[in-house]
Amino acid sequence: MTDRKHGTTQGADAPAVLTAAMLLAHWQGHRRLTRRVIEAFPEKDLFEFSAGGMRTFALLATEMLQMIAPTMKGVLEDRWEAGGYGAAGPATKDELLEAWDAADQLLAESWPNIPPERFFEEANAFGLWTAPVITTLLYLVDNEVHHRGQGYVYLRMLGITPPLFYQRQMAGTGEDGA
Amino acid sequence: MTDRKHGTTQGADAPAVLTAAMLLAHWQGHRRLTRRVIEAFPEKDLFEFSAGGMRTFALLATEMLQMIAPTMKGVLEDRWEAGGYGAAGPATKDELLEAWDAADQLLAESWPNIPPERFFEEANAFGLWTAPVITTLLYLVDNEVHHRGQGYVYLRMLGITPPLFYQRQMAGTGEDGA
Repeated sequence: MTDRKHGTTQGADAPAVLTAAMLLAHWQGHRRLTRRVIEAFPEKDLFEFSAGGMRTFALLATEMLQMIAPTMKGVLEDRWEAGGYGAAGPATKDELLEAWDAADQLLAESWPNIPPERFFEEANAFGLWTAPVITTLLYLVDNEVHHRGQGYVYLRMLGITPPLFYQRQMAGTGEDGA
Repeated sequence: MTDRKHGTTQGADAPAVLTAAMLLAHWQGHRRLTRRVIEAFPEKDLFEFSAGGMRTFALLATEMLQMIAPTMKGVLEDRWEAGGYGAAGPATKDELLEAWDAADQLLAESWPNIPPERFFEEANAFGLWTAPVITTLLYLVDNEVHHRGQGYVYLRMLGITPPLFYQRQMAGTGEDGA
């Protein structure tokens, strides 16, 4: 069935390179690293420091975590609603980390419920784009890596050494790279 | 065969979510966006501007592109040698863009030669880590997104509006998001 699915989207000879479980593990590794970046910020700088007129890292991290619940709802129920996205975010570092962990838990619990064929189905995500569900999920991972990289610059500008980029579980290994 | 491969790494019930062709298209979309970021820098700032004691964006982009040839050699021949990695990089924006395009061409030409089962094979990449080949390939993509995000901060600090993050071909669609 898997090969037939690929056949409909990329040609029957297209090999699979990533399983759902591997992608989840990969994302979870990124989320562990992002959590370490949040922790590395002094409380005040987390909510006040930024560069170039950009958002604070608290706001960037809030965006990342607020995307998860509405996206998983869209993936699982095909109802693409903003949910809590854009709401006022956590006001303290502890609250942010708590919300971060709650999003992790939601992700871990809801991910196994994604039917295998769902990843390849086209969906109009939030009225923003129409693409295979896998593309939207990869977008969330990429968005996290992108903004976390910006957090690294903030930390360096604050004189703080960020966590190592590879300090996270790596996809498919089940081992922690730390 | 694909399912059997997955069975050895993630359990026989693990669904595939990404094909080799989709991952290549995804990476190529990122590479197109990174190229736009390089182009957005004024020549002088590309090679001189940085923040927090970090590397210039020319050096970050040079790292990204110099990783490709040695990695593809390792993936295809299981010879993990530094190759041109760490060599003096391009000295002008035109040279950097030329090297960027050459790496794109190498990637496009060599990628289809990766045997399907290779993605799941463990390899000791450059003596740095032992992981499935797919993990090492994802690392290169993540590293590019990470450092490109830092380039966005540099551009904002220079008063330049960066290209839209979603301005790239999206995985599996074959459509340009621009």
